Amino acid sequence: MGRAEPLAVLRPRTPEEVARAMAGLNRLSQTVVPQGGLTGLAGGANPRPQDVALSLAGLSGVIDIDRDARSMTCLAGTPLAEAQAAAAAEGLMLPIDLGARDSCLIGGNIATNAGGLRVIRYGTTRANVLGLEAVLADGSTIGALRKMIKISLGPDLSALMIGSEGTIGTITRAVLRLVPQPAGRLTALCALSDFPAVLRLLTRARDTLPGLSAFEAMWASFFRLMSEMRGSTLFADAPPLAVIIEAETDGSDAERLRFEALLEAAIEAGEITDAILPQSLRELSAMWSVRETAGMEQAMPGLVNLDISLPSTDLGRFDEAAADALRSALPGAATFSFGHVGDGNLHLCVHLPGTDPEAAIHEVDDVIYPLVGRMGGAISAEHGIGTLKRDYLGQSRTAADLAALRRVKAALDPNGILNPGKVLPL
Amino acid sequence: MGRAEPLAVLRPRTPEEVARAMAGLNRLSQTVVPQGGLTGLAGGANPRPQDVALSLAGLSGVIDIDRDARSMTCLAGTPLAEAQAAAAAEGLMLPIDLGARDSCLIGGNIATNAGGLRVIRYGTTRANVLGLEAVLADGSTIGALRKMIKISLGPDLSALMIGSEGTIGTITRAVLRLVPQPAGRLTALCALSDFPAVLRLLTRARDTLPGLSAFEAMWASFFRLMSEMRGSTLFADAPPLAVIIEAETDGSDAERLRFEALLEAAIEAGEITDAILPQSLRELSAMWSVRETAGMEQAMPGLVNLDISLPSTDLGRFDEAAADALRSALPGAATFSFGHVGDGNLHLCVHLPGTDPEAAIHEVDDVIYPLVGRMGGAISAEHGIGTLKRDYLGQSRTAADLAALRRVKAALDPNGILNPGKVLPL
Ligand SMILES: Cc1cc2nc3c(=O)[nH]c(=O)nc-3n(C[C@H](O)[C@H](O)[C@H](O)COP(=O)(O)OP(=O)(O)OC[C@H]3O[C@@H](n4cnc5c(N)ncnc54)[C@H](O)[C@@H]3O)c2cc1C
Ligand SMILES: Cc1cc2nc3c(=O)[nH]c(=O)nc-3n(C[C@H](O)[C@H](O)[C@H](O)COP(=O)(O)OP(=O)(O)OC[C@H]3O[C@@H](n4cnc5c(N)ncnc54)[C@H](O)[C@@H]3O)c2cc1C
Repeated sequence: MGRAEPLAVLRPRTPEEVARAMAGLNRLSQTVVPQGGLTGLAGGANPRPQDVALSLAGLSGVIDIDRDARSMTCLAGTPLAEAQAAAAAEGLMLPIDLGARDSCLIGGNIATNAGGLRVIRYGTTRANVLGLEAVLADGSTIGALRKMIKISLGPDLSALMIGSEGTIGTITRAVLRLVPQPAGRLTALCALSDFPAVLRLLTRARDTLPGLSAFEAMWASFFRLMSEMRGSTLFADAPPLAVIIEAETDGSDAERLRFEALLEAAIEAGEITDAILPQSLRELSAMWSVRETAGMEQAMPGLVNLDISLPSTDLGRFDEAAADALRSALPGAATFSFGHVGDGNLHLCVHLPGTDPEAAIHEVDDVIYPLVGRMGGAISAEHGIGTLKRDYLGQSRTAADLAALRRVKAALDPNGILNPGKVLPL
Repeated sequence: MGRAEPLAVLRPRTPEEVARAMAGLNRLSQTVVPQGGLTGLAGGANPRPQDVALSLAGLSGVIDIDRDARSMTCLAGTPLAEAQAAAAAEGLMLPIDLGARDSCLIGGNIATNAGGLRVIRYGTTRANVLGLEAVLADGSTIGALRKMIKISLGPDLSALMIGSEGTIGTITRAVLRLVPQPAGRLTALCALSDFPAVLRLLTRARDTLPGLSAFEAMWASFFRLMSEMRGSTLFADAPPLAVIIEAETDGSDAERLRFEALLEAAIEAGEITDAILPQSLRELSAMWSVRETAGMEQAMPGLVNLDISLPSTDLGRFDEAAADALRSALPGAATFSFGHVGDGNLHLCVHLPGTDPEAAIHEVDDVIYPLVGRMGGAISAEHGIGTLKRDYLGQSRTAADLAALRRVKAALDPNGILNPGKVLPL
């Protein structure tokens, strides 16, 4: 994953400059790595010494906010937080949100099909892109800056760009969907005794809270670790599972009562054993701080953070199978799991004390990814493939699918200049 | 648009049979037209005499409904209405819905990125496909039957299949998103005096009704025509614009009061001049019958029905410009417009009395599509391109975009066997 010094760094300031630079690089068959905010977790933006880096950071700015179309048009180098603030200034909300918001760029979010904190309500980045424009390897531009949700104009190349990690084209501008700002938010931390109870609570929450905006589960070892790190005493003993439920509301008493009734019904049904409703903003942020992972890797150097996607129903079974497999293959491995359970997304963190970090990643990957493959899951839910998971992609995509991808890549980038070695092996 | 007798009709019964048939056709360089329910409105499923037709109707059936993942897996030849009924039997709803529901097939819906009646709330077909599987020209199979909403596995070829009208591959199975069944529905028919008032009402409705599920505008000539055809006296005089608002609710009195308060506020603000709340199911269906177009073409043979997409804000301006352009180019032309305004989708119906239907289409297209192109709109919102709009596609997609599409098509279908002459010219 080491980030080598590239041959050169190009910093275009307009889509036209991107197009001209790309055409020139293509003529020279010079390989190029598109770069956003460099917060990616799969190595996709790392250049090799022989690559040119193409930084999109200079293509920054919101071009237009259309309140009727509920859309924002911006340059691909706009930082996510800046785009969010521009929407908020118009009384609207950009649904995309992730911890790296201050550093990651809109183009990077699209290129990785970023997930994040509001997927259960608003979908992944894919669901929030109305239109985009991208420069291909030959310098030609595809796509369109459309604000409409209904389009049927034949096969859509823009759709191919989403999640393509810089291997098919360079995104230069995009139109994003905006939604109304929620008037209120309600949050609770619940204790549960097993994973089937988590699934029952999820069904109940989805059926009764139309504004359900987060459903984050923490397994006991993760909850215990983070509670200690934060000095939190939310639950005296870590329950087998803890879940943060959050719902966006219209701010009315009726919605608050409905939220509380949901928790009461879940307690009565034996689904949750305890629940805490924060009484202040301080308590609210204490609650979320246990779920956030900042500082976790510093506390446990070499921690391996896997980003698995499976149907919610299978997450409990998977977590057990993964722990078993690790125990027998890598004695001493400690696991700490948390997940956006409503999205079917589990972050399994594994620590191998005393193992070199680089080696640890591959030892863990070799145990876990085949299991993910056998269960029909995805080895990346939101972080992407890059170089880190490239050699395991066959666990989640068939050989025929990857062969077809290679043909499409060769058709659009015949000289192979775009981010070589990422997603697909060289 | 004539539908010729094909060379032969193949009726595979399994995805494997589709794959075998396709591999065989490819070896012979035999052209093939994938067919769903044949309800498409752009000629995309029409074979030429030298083509083989590949009917997907034999690949029918719901394979699995997963209540936790809120998903349905089905074969591509399943009729939409059958898939809807299967979801309803589990207490869930398939968000895709269109007038052709009894005849159109799920694969056809995906291949056209069908829109329909619930897009404002649930998005187009694209937003409701979790995973799909498709057979390429060489008989290989791409994609996966995934139920998860979060996937980041590099460039996604499945996304390219949506809206591809049988030109890139043949969809054999798909996983669709299901949503909770709404407990109630509230509907009103409103009279408005101009298009800016329609936009203000739309903003108000989106801001106050989280369950807003339809916002259908009818211009005066359309409303008058359909009221006469249905013998309806909902409004004694056709208002400049009539709008049907529908919202899905939890069935509570609170939501009914909120809906009524919205209408009152809109009357007070002068946005709407009159509103009718149906008092019975009979009144409700009378209201929708004015919006439905069944029988319209029979009443006016040769009626040209355009399917335009533009930002909502521009629809009023476009409708006026289109009427002006038609008046000067084609004297005698009568226009009847209605539209899913919340989706930016206008159906402009044009009648040229005394003109041969085939000729009429092209005369109207020649006037309207360049105007759509100049305003940055899409010449097809939901019906697709097929052969009918093929020669106008350049109005909505750039030459560079279409050149790239041709390269992708050639890479995946080097013998050009898949639906030749559809979307792209021969
Ligand atoms: C603290 C922290 C929290 C995070 N939380 C989340 C989370 O909750 N959910 C989540 O999904 N991710 C998360 N991430 C990962 C990361 O933030 C996302 O992957 C993000 O979308 C990357 O954006 P970037 O601009 O930093 O892209 P980069 O890291 O610069 O690039 C990522 C990939 O996209 C390509 N790329 C970048 N810009 C373009 C462009 N304009 N055109 C074409 N290709 C391009 C690069 O070549 C590379 O392959 C987190 C990261 C950190 C550090
Ligand atoms: C009364 C009526 C109302 C309608 N209302 C709407 C509406 O509200 N919204 C809307 O969007 N459309 C509407 N339509 C148009 C039509 O119903 C849709 O386009 C529908 O999605 C077509 O489905 P189908 O199965 O009939 O496809 P077909 O007509 O058989 O085929 C359509 C295209 O898809 C391709 N195709 C079909 N199946 C496959 C497959 N399995 N794999 C690959 N390619 C395939 C064909 O080659 C063709 O290009 C309406 C049509 C009618 C007659």
